[in-house]
Amino acid sequence: MKSIEFPDRSQWKGLLERPALSNAGLYDTVKAILDQVRDGGDTAIYQLEKKFDKAELTSLQVEDNMFTEAEKLIPEELKSAIRAAAGNIAKFHKSQIPSLQKVETTEGVVCWQKAVPIQKVGLYIPGGSAPLFSTVLMLAIPAVTAGCNEIILCTPPDKEGKINPAILFAAKTAGVSRIFKIGGSQAIAAMAYGTESVPKVSKIFGPGNSYVTAAKQLVSLKDVAIDMPAGPSEVAVIADDTADASFIAADLLSQAEHGPDSQVMLLTTSARILSEVQAEVTRQTALLPRQQIAGRALDNSRLVLLKDMDEVMDLANGYAPEHLIIHAANAGILAEQVVNAGSVFIGEWSPESAGDYASGTNHTLPTSGYAKAYSGVNIDSFIKKITFQQLSREGLGKLGPIVETMAAGESLDAHKNAVSIRLARK
Amino acid sequence: MKSIEFPDRSQWKGLLERPALSNAGLYDTVKAILDQVRDGGDTAIYQLEKKFDKAELTSLQVEDNMFTEAEKLIPEELKSAIRAAAGNIAKFHKSQIPSLQKVETTEGVVCWQKAVPIQKVGLYIPGGSAPLFSTVLMLAIPAVTAGCNEIILCTPPDKEGKINPAILFAAKTAGVSRIFKIGGSQAIAAMAYGTESVPKVSKIFGPGNSYVTAAKQLVSLKDVAIDMPAGPSEVAVIADDTADASFIAADLLSQAEHGPDSQVMLLTTSARILSEVQAEVTRQTALLPRQQIAGRALDNSRLVLLKDMDEVMDLANGYAPEHLIIHAANAGILAEQVVNAGSVFIGEWSPESAGDYASGTNHTLPTSGYAKAYSGVNIDSFIKKITFQQLSREGLGKLGPIVETMAAGESLDAHKNAVSIRLARK
Repeated sequence: MKSIEFPDRSQWKGLLERPALSNAGLYDTVKAILDQVRDGGDTAIYQLEKKFDKAELTSLQVEDNMFTEAEKLIPEELKSAIRAAAGNIAKFHKSQIPSLQKVETTEGVVCWQKAVPIQKVGLYIPGGSAPLFSTVLMLAIPAVTAGCNEIILCTPPDKEGKINPAILFAAKTAGVSRIFKIGGSQAIAAMAYGTESVPKVSKIFGPGNSYVTAAKQLVSLKDVAIDMPAGPSEVAVIADDTADASFIAADLLSQAEHGPDSQVMLLTTSARILSEVQAEVTRQTALLPRQQIAGRALDNSRLVLLKDMDEVMDLANGYAPEHLIIHAANAGILAEQVVNAGSVFIGEWSPESAGDYASGTNHTLPTSGYAKAYSGVNIDSFIKKITFQQLSREGLGKLGPIVETMAAGESLDAHKNAVSIRLARK
Repeated sequence: MKSIEFPDRSQWKGLLERPALSNAGLYDTVKAILDQVRDGGDTAIYQLEKKFDKAELTSLQVEDNMFTEAEKLIPEELKSAIRAAAGNIAKFHKSQIPSLQKVETTEGVVCWQKAVPIQKVGLYIPGGSAPLFSTVLMLAIPAVTAGCNEIILCTPPDKEGKINPAILFAAKTAGVSRIFKIGGSQAIAAMAYGTESVPKVSKIFGPGNSYVTAAKQLVSLKDVAIDMPAGPSEVAVIADDTADASFIAADLLSQAEHGPDSQVMLLTTSARILSEVQAEVTRQTALLPRQQIAGRALDNSRLVLLKDMDEVMDLANGYAPEHLIIHAANAGILAEQVVNAGSVFIGEWSPESAGDYASGTNHTLPTSGYAKAYSGVNIDSFIKKITFQQLSREGLGKLGPIVETMAAGESLDAHKNAVSIRLARK
């Protein structure tokens, strides 16, 4: 990890740069796959699954008996951990259901919002070496809690056409309606356009590689909503002189092991902590199975020494990290100064892993500085707020002349007339 | 308007189609403008303003004295209408500020959300024949109410380099920080990338023509968040036999006058109402200054006779209209069955114009069926919800083993280690 001492504010912008992603030609490749699925439906999906996932499928939807089989294959300890995490996630997301009130803005003019679940949602869970059953919980539980009618999930099959049992168990536990054995851009296309087997959804959620991300962006231009733009995972750790360097190093590495394009940052006021963390990272990395991945992520990463906590907080808010961990004596007070971050972990007993899996907060969070404008996935992500209004005749009598004046000012006579014709009624 | 009687459900999809938009080459044209601004900054803006708005500007920001001058130019009646509308909009959006609670998901594990305003937002207001000062209120008031630090606004100047005084007055009333005389894609580029004069923002709001919409979509892929995808305006009116045909015709026309690509729909169970509305639309159109625009919108529009209110509600929810007006004896009950719509107007004294201007609800709403997944602009649009968590040592003691089991199940050892290293601490 590169360490930087007392950088001038003019250097901050450079310090906060994310690793550059190369995507030349990516959109063209992905667009061709999207078109193929839109035009070819299920037939195209079977071809693409053979090509990309090397799976010769005979059906796309996971059969009911596979869930029963999955449940037998998973150790009891893992099942009970998944159930406990699911309970916490449900509890926290249920608390987010908004309570909305009617407002009489003018006498006889009553306005309100109503939270209505998005009817059909699609979740994407990537494949790869490890089964991301935690992400199944993080997406499906809020969808169920919000009350979405139809919750489908796509995830790539292995070469035998099977889905990891932990994914199936988590999906069943959370309450997913149906699972499809489809990966990559073709899964996004299937959910965006619909096929004979896969229903078209109104919003697509979930992480993925650059192809999946590009596919989500392209379908979001016209056909469907998406959760948020996704980028490589990242963490910033804030530390003062009271912090524990071995805890910090473990936190940095828990992020660095995600992928070679991950980024971790330490922002500290303590030269001692900086050098201790540097040493601890080296020591702990050597013990990790994924040390090569972590090592490459550490190449993108920085330890920054700053002159006081004001600078630390300014730099952290400028970075707008996906995860922010605060190791400091006054962690709670510093947390109140956070304006840009996805999820904040306060104090030495709050590792990011807690929120990644089981505390109840969501781990689908804005990366790449998007935390300046986006929230992580939460109950809002699965509802829309419809506004309603009801005017009494007297209410329109009071409000109508204001509307008439404004409509005339915008030269929209038919807008004005919709009021005038009512006010003129005897 | 085309009228359709008792369509079979198999025909519904065709009935609900929006007018097709042609955009061949649009993205290429817009991308060139975006690149020009990103590379050239203010210099590029001056060139593009000369080219597209025929304005030879000497500065981009509207000077303070222009606001004072604007206030003198506007009739007192309009000023007082704008102030009254602003008050209602502020009242309704203030009621939307979420109250969030701390949740102890497991003993010693406390999670919460905090609503934090997006620090910098940019608003776009189109030019054209009429000054859309109402849209200034609809975007700027929620931004101010949410607590955004910096609220800038771009709108195209006229050939003399001036901005309509009603726009300036509304912006001042609402509390916009700074206004820039920039229109079209170049305005979106300026706010997305920043220039010497224009600050880079984190989220861009506002309507516009196809160039502005394409620019917003392109910058949203990587650089900045946007409010929602925008399309032509639309309304669906639901009516039973008790409705007033002249009110309905006025409501349909208030939408049709927006533009030739607008769409209006009547869904009714009454053959009498259908034919009376048809006649009233013809009669009222002839009286409108914008009758040519309205006439072209009516060509895209439909009157549909259905067999009962269940069919009406199904079709309305399938259409997911931006605006939905319910003219029926049991309008309140029908409104409860709405699952897809931007904003709903209940009963004969609630014309869409009320919400367009002054009742307090927002008029920036999802079009083109996006109401299935998107809300209209509301206080949420200007905030993000950051999650926080704080575990006590005992809390981690309880939750830690669950996290360890799950992390091991996903083969993420460093995630597990961030817990284990803490649990091992004597």
